[in-house]
Parts: sequence; structure tokens; C-alpha cells
Amino acid sequence: MNAAVLSVGSELLLGDLTDSNATWISARLRERGVRVVHHLAVADDVDAIVGSLRWLAARADLVVVGGGLGPTSDDLTREAVAAALGADLELREDLEEAIVARFAALGRPMAPRNRRQAFVPQGARTAPPVGTAPAFAVDLTVEGAQRPVRVIALPGVPWELHELWSTFVVPQLDELGVTGATVTRIVHVAGRGESDVASVVEPLVADEADVTLAFLAKQHGIQVRLTATGRDPDDASARAQPAVDRVVAALGASVSGLDDADLETTVVRLLADRGQRVATAESATGGSIAARLARVPRASAVLVGGLVVYRDEAKSLLAGLDADLVAREGAVSEAVTRALALAVRARTGADWGLAVTGVAGPGPVDDLPVGTVFWALAAPDGTCEVHGRVVPGDRPSVIARLGSAALDLLRRRLLDG
Amino acid sequence: MNAAVLSVGSELLLGDLTDSNATWISARLRERGVRVVHHLAVADDVDAIVGSLRWLAARADLVVVGGGLGPTSDDLTREAVAAALGADLELREDLEEAIVARFAALGRPMAPRNRRQAFVPQGARTAPPVGTAPAFAVDLTVEGAQRPVRVIALPGVPWELHELWSTFVVPQLDELGVTGATVTRIVHVAGRGESDVASVVEPLVADEADVTLAFLAKQHGIQVRLTATGRDPDDASARAQPAVDRVVAALGASVSGLDDADLETTVVRLLADRGQRVATAESATGGSIAARLARVPRASAVLVGGLVVYRDEAKSLLAGLDADLVAREGAVSEAVTRALALAVRARTGADWGLAVTGVAGPGPVDDLPVGTVFWALAAPDGTCEVHGRVVPGDRPSVIARLGSAALDLLRRRLLDG
Repeated sequence: MNAAVLSVGSELLLGDLTDSNATWISARLRERGVRVVHHLAVADDVDAIVGSLRWLAARADLVVVGGGLGPTSDDLTREAVAAALGADLELREDLEEAIVARFAALGRPMAPRNRRQAFVPQGARTAPPVGTAPAFAVDLTVEGAQRPVRVIALPGVPWELHELWSTFVVPQLDELGVTGATVTRIVHVAGRGESDVASVVEPLVADEADVTLAFLAKQHGIQVRLTATGRDPDDASARAQPAVDRVVAALGASVSGLDDADLETTVVRLLADRGQRVATAESATGGSIAARLARVPRASAVLVGGLVVYRDEAKSLLAGLDADLVAREGAVSEAVTRALALAVRARTGADWGLAVTGVAGPGPVDDLPVGTVFWALAAPDGTCEVHGRVVPGDRPSVIARLGSAALDLLRRRLLDG
Repeated sequence: MNAAVLSVGSELLLGDLTDSNATWISARLRERGVRVVHHLAVADDVDAIVGSLRWLAARADLVVVGGGLGPTSDDLTREAVAAALGADLELREDLEEAIVARFAALGRPMAPRNRRQAFVPQGARTAPPVGTAPAFAVDLTVEGAQRPVRVIALPGVPWELHELWSTFVVPQLDELGVTGATVTRIVHVAGRGESDVASVVEPLVADEADVTLAFLAKQHGIQVRLTATGRDPDDASARAQPAVDRVVAALGASVSGLDDADLETTVVRLLADRGQRVATAESATGGSIAARLARVPRASAVLVGGLVVYRDEAKSLLAGLDADLVAREGAVSEAVTRALALAVRARTGADWGLAVTGVAGPGPVDDLPVGTVFWALAAPDGTCEVHGRVVPGDRPSVIARLGSAALDLLRRRLLDG
């Protein structure tokens, strides 16, 4: 079964609002094994909505329309669906009573314009409003189609849409015979490029008819996404698992996490498993490595704390580095990064000391180009390793990439140990 | 002039990713007075992309395509645009050299598949890649249209897209004769609720026919958005300015920034104006306050550094607090927060010491409910003020709100001084 999402509202096209409803609806449909073929956004204009509905109806068995059901003159989904059907709007007294009762419950009088919301296309199936906007559904016959297309119109307010999904949409999916389920597994990969990862993974999945593969480059690494469809969620999971196992085995230590477990979550889990703790000393990242770890629930078991040694004087005052060392080697250097990792480990008694320095931009520092970064890890045995390179991107990207490089080094060493 | 945005990528339709590129592109086009008539998302499928392009080209003078320019087999925008044109793909040696050079600069070999990215539809205008994905533009003639439709294909990686917008798209908009302009001014408001802000602002703008008003509630505060249209950017700005001035005057110290200047940018600017510096001592926020400041370009002039005193032992080892004080008062307490602010100011020699403690969740700590937070500011005169409350929300919200409360306290004190 194919579906499409039509989002009605000029605010989307003005760039004032991002269409997270389309994302949410798509994720819900995918869980039921329904394939979403398009998202389309359209302005508050009857002709444009009718044209959009017709185009989508020629490509999908189900069109979910979000928005345009409010009480104001620019809420035109009711009119547009009626026009696409060639039907009139009719007043539903049960809906009118429900809207009046809704306002009474809030202790507010119903404005006359809210009566607009009790009109739906003739013959529509309706759901009582959870806010003040009733949802409705119709069957639209399009030229050349073998069967009518179900059009379900829902309010654009997210919590109303979410509630109506279970009470109004799910029963219709059951009735339309939607039985499948789709599961997407995510393999997070750190420290390797997209094309390198793809060249390893693609041959492993090429023969799996049930599994589709996608790659997503994120600031923090590459996501390999394996999507499988089955009779139900368990069946879909079972079909995905062999491919996930092969990908994880082939990528080995480059796998930084599975599904919801991103890099920092994985690091917190690995440290907790080993009963070990980390402390950080951050220059260019300004505390964001510690903050990424602190965002993981129960980080307090493994993150002792850290130093933000942003200016040169902080490297001396907070980490106790010799000011001469910083002056001689440069604040962004292998030697200073090593000294910071060793110092923060010693000062906190943590098992691991993780340190970074770098040039985040906008301008170069000490003739080092933007993106020059170093990261160092002081280990429980007292040794310290340092890495350096030039990473691409603007200031936020450099900060994110450097943090990920440092966390990934810790992750790999935890796997070794 | 009408435009449409076509976003290519199955991850959008699977509900894995929200299409914020379409929002960003629409806001940029609106600034130039271009009307966006549709956003359309399509899967990684040549036929579907071609069908989508044709449908949009019949409705717009400009189609901006985002995504599908990567090196993998599911990156199909090049092929689809060529198919829509009835043209072949051709290898551009200058692009191939630029991609090879890009990998060389990163110290990595170019994978053979990245050569795919040097192919563009015959006759296309191209832009050298800022990542590894070259952008290109073609003119597509559609049946019944009076003039060809400009199709501009950009990479989906946001920072690459943003950079190519100024260097590759804006010159084409100039050339296509786009002359109108819309300007949106943003007044950031901290520490007040949306309806309270609206009741102050709405009467101030009610008589301004040229200016439209919108309110947006964010985790870090309320945004008042004032949009004006004019002949060119200067004219539109001139129409917006009187309303902006009235709103800023009426909201007074609640205004935390204008336009791109969010709270942390404003704090960095205020500190720089006064030649003063700040240092942080963070427990619950784990370094994210320092990281927010460090994300602002030129933060190194005003952020000395800080301490992440996450576990109790870090409060003693790094900030020198008496372990008895922490045991007696509790790690999340007014007394400990005050001691941290004073300690980090003393240790770093900064003008201001900013400290926070709190219960971010998921569970309560020492019988304090999730959301219990304290923030303290040690001032240049040696005094220290502490504030506390219980904030709503989950772990990331508590961390964000506590950081904003602390930064807003510093901002207000800088305005006073």
C-alpha cells in the first residue's frame, strides 16, 4: 500500500515552520508497513489544494491531509476536499454540538466563526474533535484508478493529530487491510567516510530482497539504515537481523552504536560496564564533549567532570600547564593536548583523561588553518596517545567533528581493553 | 516569481529526518520576495524524481532541488535531472580535480565511487564543491510554459547548502531579475510567557499595514517575528525598523537579542563591549553553558574557561569546595552553587563567575524533584547572587532552560553595570 502526506498551510512555504507533522505521520505509516511516496506542502488556496490532492491521489492509495481545518477564512481543507469530490459541504449537527460543548468545558463562549468547523464534505466519515477541529475521511475516485483513494483530513495541531491517529486513522488502516510492518535498524559508524562505508556494506546486503539500505551522513558520523518489511513487527525484525549482524561484523570497531545508542550513549554504557570513569579537558569544543556525555541519563556514574581550558591562561590556572610549554608549542598542538589529557586524569583521579585543542574558526590561529584539531587520551596505565588532522566544515561542524573524534577514540580503547 | 522546493531522499519519507532544508530555502527565497508554492519530497528513485520535477516545473519558474548528490548508488538527482532534460551525463574534469583535491586536503584517498560526483547533465552550469558534492543548474523547458524553468540542484548537507546558497544561487536570482525583498526581524525575549509578550506587542504593530507579526515559543525563550516587504532589502528594512524600535522599547530588559543574536551571542557581545570575561562552573548542564558561549565566533576574547563539576568529588578536586559543605547542604543547593560561582571566579581571575547545579532527571536526587535548579553569579565587586526554582520538562529541556536562566542573569547584570 502506498500513501502520501499533504500538508496545508502557507506558514510552511514562508519558511516560518518546519513540517514535523509529515515526519511523524510517515514514521507511523512505516511502522504499519505502508510506503510513503511523497510529502507535499501547499498554500491556503482551494485550487492549489485540489490540484495537489488529485496529483497525489494518482500516486497513492491513501492521502493523509494535515492542517487547514481551523475556524478562520484561510482554513480551506474542507472546501478543497469537497471540490475535489464534486460534493457540497454539509452541516453536521453532532459536530456542532461537540464544538459548543468543547468551548463550554473550557469556560469560553464559542465564536461564530467556529461554526465553520462543523461543516464537512457530504457523506464524509467524521471523528469528534479533540480540540475544536473535527477530522473527516472520504473516498476519492480518480481517473484510471482501480479503486477509490482514501483521503483522511486531520488537524495540524500536533497533539490533536497524534490523538486522532489512534482513534480515527488506525481503525481505518485495519479496515483497509493494512497488515504489514516495517522495521528500520540503524548502525552508527564513526571515523570512516560515507563512500568507504558504502563500499563495505552494499555487497553484504545486495542479495537481501527484504532489506533496503540507506546511508545518512551526520555531523557526528555515518548512519547505515537497514529497513525490512514483514507480516508484523516481529517478522520484520527477524528479516532485518541477519543483515544487521553481517554489517556489524564487517564494520567491526567502526560501529559506534546501534539504533537509539549514539556515540555518547555507547561510551557511557562501555564505561559503566567496566566500572570506569572519564574526565575531560576541552579547549576548542568549549565543554561540549562533557555536555554530550552529560546529556545521557545516568552519566553521573561515569563522568567525573572536566576542565574548559578555553583561553591560554585557563590551561595554566585550571589544568596547571607550564605557561612556557603553551607559548613554545602553541595552544593548538600535540604537546599541549597530551599535557591536558594527562593533567585532567591526574587532577580528578579518573581512569581516562580526554583532551582536545583546535582551530574552530572563523579565522586561522598561529598560522594553523581552520579545522586543525588534536585529541588525546590518557589511559589507566599512564600512557597517552594523541591524534591530529584537519577536518572540514564551519565552526559548529569543526566543534562537532572534533568531539566525535575524541569520543570515538575513547570508545575504541574501551573495546580493546 | 514562483518557486518550488524538491527534497530528494527516502529518509524523509521513512520519517527518519524532518525536512528543515525546505524551511531554510523558503525563508531565503522569501527574503528575496520569491513566492514558494510547494515543497515536495520524493524517494531515491529516478522515475519518481523526474515526475516530481515535471509537475513542479509546470507550477514554478524556479525549482530548487536539495539532496541526492552524494557518491552512493541511491544518490540519483544527477541522473533524474538529465532524464528530465533528455540529456546525457558528462564527466567534468574540473569537478573531478576539485573532488580529488578536496580529499587530498583532508588527507584521505578518493574512493572510486566519488568520481560519480563529477558527472553533471550536459551543458549544466556548475559550482565547485564545498564538501564533495558539486552543485549544478540547468534550464528545463516544459510543455506550454512561456520560458524555461531554472532547476538548481544543491547538496542536502546543510552547511554545504548554506554556503552554496550565497555563492551559486544568489547570483542566479540576480540574473533572473528577482528584485523584491522581504525582511524578517526577530526580537528574542527571555523570561516572559508568550501571551504576556503578545499582549504587549500586538497593539504596537496593529496599525502597521506593511508589517506582519508572528510569535514562536522556543526552549530558550519567545521569538517575536516582524516581517516587512519592500522594493529591495533596504526598503523592506526601513519599513520594519519603526515597529522593531517600538517593540524593543516596550519590552526593555526582557529583550535578549535581535535577529541572529541569540542569548549567548548577546552575552558575548556585552562582555566584549565592557572588556570583561566570564568563567563557568557547571554541574547539571555538564559544560553546555561554556559550550554555548564557545559556539559564538570570537568567544575566546571573553570566555576564560570553566569547570565541569559533575560528580561530587569534582566539586572538591576541581573547584576546591569543602567536601563537608557538599555533604551537609547537598550537591544541588543554594550554598554549593554560590560556592562554585565564587570559586571559579577566584581560580580563573575572571570578572564574572557563573555556576549551576540541578536535578536534570530521569530520577529525583536527595528527595529533590526533577527540574530543581540553582544558578549563581559572582560579580566583579565580589558579591554573589543565587536563584533557584523548579523548571518543567525532560532531561534535555531542564539542561537547556537552566543554561538559559544562568546566561540571562549574566546578560541582565551586564546591562545594569
